[in-house]
Amino acid sequence: MREKNTDYRHIAETIFQQAPFIQDIGLVLKNVEAGFCESQLKVLPRHQQQNGFVHAGVQSTICDHTAGAAAATLLEENEIVLTVEFKINLLRPALGEQLFCRAHVLRPGKTLIVAEAELFAHNKNEPKLVAKSLTTLAFAQQEPV
Amino acid sequence: MREKNTDYRHIAETIFQQAPFIQDIGLVLKNVEAGFCESQLKVLPRHQQQNGFVHAGVQSTICDHTAGAAAATLLEENEIVLTVEFKINLLRPALGEQLFCRAHVLRPGKTLIVAEAELFAHNKNEPKLVAKSLTTLAFAQQEPV
Amino acid sequence: MREKNTDYRHIAETIFQQAPFIQDIGLVLKNVEAGFCESQLKVLPRHQQQNGFVHAGVQSTICDHTAGAAAATLLEENEIVLTVEFKINLLRPALGEQLFCRAHVLRPGKTLIVAEAELFAHNKNEPKLVAKSLTTLAFAQQEPV
Amino acid sequence: MREKNTDYRHIAETIFQQAPFIQDIGLVLKNVEAGFCESQLKVLPRHQQQNGFVHAGVQSTICDHTAGAAAATLLEENEIVLTVEFKINLLRPALGEQLFCRAHVLRPGKTLIVAEAELFAHNKNEPKLVAKSLTTLAFAQQEPV
Repeated sequence: MREKNTDYRHIAETIFQQAPFIQDIGLVLKNVEAGFCESQLKVLPRHQQQNGFVHAGVQSTICDHTAGAAAATLLEENEIVLTVEFKINLLRPALGEQLFCRAHVLRPGKTLIVAEAELFAHNKNEPKLVAKSLTTLAFAQQEPV
Repeated sequence: MREKNTDYRHIAETIFQQAPFIQDIGLVLKNVEAGFCESQLKVLPRHQQQNGFVHAGVQSTICDHTAGAAAATLLEENEIVLTVEFKINLLRPALGEQLFCRAHVLRPGKTLIVAEAELFAHNKNEPKLVAKSLTTLAFAQQEPV
Repeated sequence: MREKNTDYRHIAETIFQQAPFIQDIGLVLKNVEAGFCESQLKVLPRHQQQNGFVHAGVQSTICDHTAGAAAATLLEENEIVLTVEFKINLLRPALGEQLFCRAHVLRPGKTLIVAEAELFAHNKNEPKLVAKSLTTLAFAQQEPV
Repeated sequence: MREKNTDYRHIAETIFQQAPFIQDIGLVLKNVEAGFCESQLKVLPRHQQQNGFVHAGVQSTICDHTAGAAAATLLEENEIVLTVEFKINLLRPALGEQLFCRAHVLRPGKTLIVAEAELFAHNKNEPKLVAKSLTTLAFAQQEPV
């Protein structure tokens, strides 16, 4: 079982800052603990699908990346984290001004990590759970440049 | 079992044109048949994750939307299609100038539809399968405006 | 959103007693609440795969059936519950004298229900989480005999 | 990418013969090629769930084990194969005298293998696709006895 990386906050921040698609959609890191990560998205019209809901692809991106950052807090030096696969249930049409996501590691293996994420939508009212995902990730050696 | 909608090409085109997030990432519809859809993405730097591969969220968006359009070819009047859930395996790091996706309906139910999608990456060389997804979709009555 | 069925305990018990495969493997119902169900299996040699661990198929059966019974507590009269799909992560090799499973409903829809289940193994020691599943179920009208 | 194991038929046969739960439910190996496996089940009353259909747990067991045997044809010496996770869609109520399953490897990685399986039911009539699964498996070193 892995120990948390002592620099885990920095690793999670880097994974958010250096991922162009995450910058592009506007997802920001809010909180990070060892094996845990929380992110937030201000919903914009460009995030929608054809019926005015937040696109399942946006929801998947948020859950995948936040789960990946939660796993990355357990990385050792010269390792990177890659998503092997995930499954996501879209529980309700996602509507609201803000989305936030909480991901935590269920199984911190040596090379395979399993994490789950919950995605909530809210306006001024109480947050509603709109999606839940279950993800398998792999730690791999970083290729030398 | 559903008959194909006689206007199925137009429905698939509309689902691509009227989804802001699909326009935003640049996914385009290439082919459509009853129960089948093919899409293409010119890969841009903004589609990447932190290691230079196409982000799993982009791959998920493509597979989800293309499967949704394949299902939508079977829609009846005043119905919309929504993703219930999907699972995606990222088989290889996605690299290349182009991605294309082929989705087809496995089970054309009356209210629940199951579709699968394969995502390929290629440069000048032979396409490689980089992701495979299995998706459950639901047909719902369109709410009156 | 569904109200709990007033006879929900009886429904869950029936779903365990009248399912031959559940009787066959020896899975028993331990607790039931509205939207929640707990089951238990005494592990026998015949439940194993080729390396001496509990077979993934046994673990899947437990998670699927317990999630189904949790959903069934929300059934209305003349309805049955069917599994649409599920995904399960096998987190550790399952070893131990007992397995127990806790399933609860995440999204009690009118026709589509989403539930998750956690499966634990234990000997005399502390229980370990060995599997987690995420399931989509459907309520359908019971066909007249 | 893996070469096929020269003794792959024997490996698949062993995985069927030495798995007590597979013997218990009566699943038999029918065909095996490198990266491919086919199995068959004679449906018995004890395989049913509470409404008379083949239990989702039986269908999952068949798809999981057949996918595992397909992956196992690529094993190297002193390795075993374990299921990391799978997702299965139950496409139709499974009814019939026989079920058969065909699984093949989609991605033969060095340590992670992805396979898919299709499950068919039939009486005297044409086989119907009743379930489809997508599975991630891992190759691990066999522990010395």
